[in-house]
Amino acid sequence: MSFKVGIVGCGTVGSGVVKLLLENGPFIEKRIGRKVEIAFVSDLNPEKVISLGVPKEKVYTDAFKAIKEVECDTVVELIGGTTTAKRIIEEALSNKRHVVTANKALLADYGNELFKMAKEKGVSLKFEASVGGGIPVIKALREGLVGNRIERIYGIINGTANFILTQMTQKGLSFEEALKLAQENGYAEADPTLDVEGFDAAHKIAILSSLAFCRWVKTENVFVDGISKLTPLDIEIAKEEFGYSVKLLAVAKEVDGSLEVRVHPTMIPEEHILSSVNGVFNACLIEGDFVGETLYYGKGAGQKPTASAVVSDIVDLAVGNSFSIPECLFRDGSLPIKEPDQFVSSFYLRFTAVDRPGVLAKIALILGKYQISIKMALQRSIDFNGGVPVVMTTHPAKKRDIDLAVKEIDQLDVILKPTFVCMIEEL
Amino acid sequence: MSFKVGIVGCGTVGSGVVKLLLENGPFIEKRIGRKVEIAFVSDLNPEKVISLGVPKEKVYTDAFKAIKEVECDTVVELIGGTTTAKRIIEEALSNKRHVVTANKALLADYGNELFKMAKEKGVSLKFEASVGGGIPVIKALREGLVGNRIERIYGIINGTANFILTQMTQKGLSFEEALKLAQENGYAEADPTLDVEGFDAAHKIAILSSLAFCRWVKTENVFVDGISKLTPLDIEIAKEEFGYSVKLLAVAKEVDGSLEVRVHPTMIPEEHILSSVNGVFNACLIEGDFVGETLYYGKGAGQKPTASAVVSDIVDLAVGNSFSIPECLFRDGSLPIKEPDQFVSSFYLRFTAVDRPGVLAKIALILGKYQISIKMALQRSIDFNGGVPVVMTTHPAKKRDIDLAVKEIDQLDVILKPTFVCMIEEL
Repeated sequence: MSFKVGIVGCGTVGSGVVKLLLENGPFIEKRIGRKVEIAFVSDLNPEKVISLGVPKEKVYTDAFKAIKEVECDTVVELIGGTTTAKRIIEEALSNKRHVVTANKALLADYGNELFKMAKEKGVSLKFEASVGGGIPVIKALREGLVGNRIERIYGIINGTANFILTQMTQKGLSFEEALKLAQENGYAEADPTLDVEGFDAAHKIAILSSLAFCRWVKTENVFVDGISKLTPLDIEIAKEEFGYSVKLLAVAKEVDGSLEVRVHPTMIPEEHILSSVNGVFNACLIEGDFVGETLYYGKGAGQKPTASAVVSDIVDLAVGNSFSIPECLFRDGSLPIKEPDQFVSSFYLRFTAVDRPGVLAKIALILGKYQISIKMALQRSIDFNGGVPVVMTTHPAKKRDIDLAVKEIDQLDVILKPTFVCMIEEL
Repeated sequence: MSFKVGIVGCGTVGSGVVKLLLENGPFIEKRIGRKVEIAFVSDLNPEKVISLGVPKEKVYTDAFKAIKEVECDTVVELIGGTTTAKRIIEEALSNKRHVVTANKALLADYGNELFKMAKEKGVSLKFEASVGGGIPVIKALREGLVGNRIERIYGIINGTANFILTQMTQKGLSFEEALKLAQENGYAEADPTLDVEGFDAAHKIAILSSLAFCRWVKTENVFVDGISKLTPLDIEIAKEEFGYSVKLLAVAKEVDGSLEVRVHPTMIPEEHILSSVNGVFNACLIEGDFVGETLYYGKGAGQKPTASAVVSDIVDLAVGNSFSIPECLFRDGSLPIKEPDQFVSSFYLRFTAVDRPGVLAKIALILGKYQISIKMALQRSIDFNGGVPVVMTTHPAKKRDIDLAVKEIDQLDVILKPTFVCMIEEL
């Protein structure tokens, strides 16, 4: 008996799923011994769906009608957003259809109630494509590493930001120039805020850390800072003076009984394999108590990779793979979320100061007042925003103390611009 | 109802599985909502098993007796070898127990009949730990990428060889020195042949390529060459002159309707992420037609990572994940295996020649005779085995032509030692 799939939304990803099922369908059947069949495709532009080769009688414009009327085993939600998409998933679940979605924003904010509903209805809600595009990272975390207590997750999970950082690193471009290049190449939206300010990565690390640490993590629990304040000079100094590369890193780890979840530009050792993740590629490092460090790498976005992930969920359902979210997510949730000002990390600080004797001493005095211990300091005699760049790295310090010290330093009359602060992870 | 596991063999990996189930058992139960319980552990040294915390009444010395007498859902075979291990698996399957194994040699040579037997008995035979230690690469290939036609697999899947190559690269050690260091660190056996000559990697790529290309690939179908003839000079020249790093690479790809499966020292671009895989770490690059390049990285051996993989198989069975090997493996198998002399590749050739005018011309003449086009040539004025090293890289050429040309060149009186030949993969 064939496994019947209803697809809601035939935009970029939806078209990819249709193409994959049509092109590789016979091949999938050879592998799993069961036919996976398109039951319906719903989209506001039916002509487009038909042009992909879907028979006219399977094409709908009203998703709710299709879900009610057409017999199918799973509904694939690919319209995005958090309003209609949520209603569609609820409609599908209440009709006892499995659901597959790529909708990270929806899951990060409403995952809790949607998974509960799926459980009540006795069906599955799967979401491999919501994080890491084509990389089967949800499957690795949920199934491949199921025997491990997860200790740390480090993700480069926004391709747009990583493309921009790679351009800034390799070509010395400014953030603005690299963003423009990303937009010209179709890697960044006209409004790039979601990607470059870290919100997209926050949705994704919220999902990963919920799965890993058995407590719901919402986007609002994630500390977020973007890459727009970074300059090519910071990247150059990090590399040449300290041996670090700079990535927009999503971090989740349990420290002293509370959970730290954050997304921000981060300096990491240049020789670490995460530093080799360039361009639009994504990677996720997951460390478990038995397995140690593992890493998953691939294209984090795009029509075809995302379709690959959606189809893996569909096939899982077709062969009866019953792995869902961790059971404990329905009961536990006691692990507290650490407040950002309690984060302890080494920091990179870049001050923009007037070129005058005694500046370094003034900065050091304030850092000392907050018990912040300087590891390395350097000043370059180049013009930088009308002053000179003064750079320091610190020994581990509390983010609260760093923030207070920087606030005080930025009020000195020898400081010309707001100081750039970047956390360092030794990995 | 708990899921009952019988473990046969409590050596390094077996002890790790017992430890994992005892330590993280409650945690696994919280995740999957089902208890995973040790039904029995069989080992010739029962005291050792008891010392791990397994109750005496669950400890057996006769595996066959345990399998017959003790009620269990799955038997985990961890004794290794291809004789008793095979009988134990057959005994378990004929008693309709699922089987989990880490035994790559057994699967590479007898997988065909064992999987058929499992299918007939209506049970599963799972083997995540057979390739890549703790990295869930079998799961990624079988399930995560199930929608893709697999185009290429490149694996660094022998930790011993990779440790040796990393030492040779980073410290300029000879093969013999690096091997000794590996042995001192417990990373290499007293007889290192299986690892350094590529046979272990051949078992593993045979398994991966069987899964990927829907035709049984046996170890004897894999072209194998080891790393013992490589010198630090080759590694240095590859890096400094050509921008390559050297890895013992396992390669599987479909080229012009036939399947190329090989393991050999390989030069790959230094900036590629595979070049960042160092020490005992393993990685597998899998490219699919929709997903593009993906990579899976982690510890390829060791007690705890391997236990992590074995337990993921056990939990898969406990939650009813029915993914097995591709159905087509029971029917197809028409894809021909390419003969090694038909491989087409760029090559690195290092001759050991007398330091005399005209040597380069003599070599070039013979290469020309076999239609081999030289891409770059260089000679270093250093003493090398009593001569000088002459190095060339070629444009793509047939391995047969290279072998014939090198045979002829090695008979020249200006050539002092057998020529070292290394394939180049641009990835």
